[in-house]
Amino acid sequence: MATEIERKFLVQGTDWRTVPGARYRQGYLSTVKERVVRVRTIDDQGYLTVKGITRGATRLEFEYEIPAADATEMLDALCERPLIEKARYRVPYGGLVWEVDEFFGDNAGLVVAEVELTSEDQAFKRPAWVDQEVTGDPRYFNSNLINRPYTRWEA
Amino acid sequence: MATEIERKFLVQGTDWRTVPGARYRQGYLSTVKERVVRVRTIDDQGYLTVKGITRGATRLEFEYEIPAADATEMLDALCERPLIEKARYRVPYGGLVWEVDEFFGDNAGLVVAEVELTSEDQAFKRPAWVDQEVTGDPRYFNSNLINRPYTRWEA
Repeated sequence: MATEIERKFLVQGTDWRTVPGARYRQGYLSTVKERVVRVRTIDDQGYLTVKGITRGATRLEFEYEIPAADATEMLDALCERPLIEKARYRVPYGGLVWEVDEFFGDNAGLVVAEVELTSEDQAFKRPAWVDQEVTGDPRYFNSNLINRPYTRWEA
Repeated sequence: MATEIERKFLVQGTDWRTVPGARYRQGYLSTVKERVVRVRTIDDQGYLTVKGITRGATRLEFEYEIPAADATEMLDALCERPLIEKARYRVPYGGLVWEVDEFFGDNAGLVVAEVELTSEDQAFKRPAWVDQEVTGDPRYFNSNLINRPYTRWEA
């Protein structure tokens, strides 16, 4: 298990849209934080992922590739509602890769960017399209965007 | 999806013990009946299984073989407590195969036998070691033997 240090930001404008995106559909069989079970299709690949709770800097995570037809059937018939639908763009900037997630469906209008760092104090160049930091804000966790989707947040 | 008709019985004595058993350790990442997620090791094989709710005679079920080390780590660190520990014996009798589950741990003392039939009115020969029928009794569902294990049932 590697230590992941991720910082998450809101995104403004569309200048980040410099690469083609991959289409994500994902849903949850469990959103209990001690044992999250996620089903996902990325374009035409299926994945089943099990995640534990974060303890210190580590989190157990197991991911398996599964037939996309199975994943689609689980998403359509079994997963909690609503599903998360988004496009992910891997945008190179300043020697790092920013993952920009543009949400659709019940979370339409939300665009967030994440960058993975190797230490908490690592300096990095911030793209002009990066806005307010929301690292650690649970409202933006994908598992919480199901129970409280962005389009239903109060102004 | 095949229609499964299973009848479940309590077991008396030890005359059923005519074949070697396989060791099962299993736990649950979700016991929500609409989306059960089960982790299992059978001897040295690992499995991750997703099951939907039974609607009429059908139930969605997806099973994946996973590394036994992953399954063991999920069982030890992530699954709901207690785990289900049992030995399963596949006992041939009267042209059918009876699956006898002998439970250990928090369910020690419980032994049940299941037989799979192809129709609800299929006649079958009942072994002498088969006792009371408990088909459909939710107390005996493996997913319920976690929250209410057999050793804690009231007499």
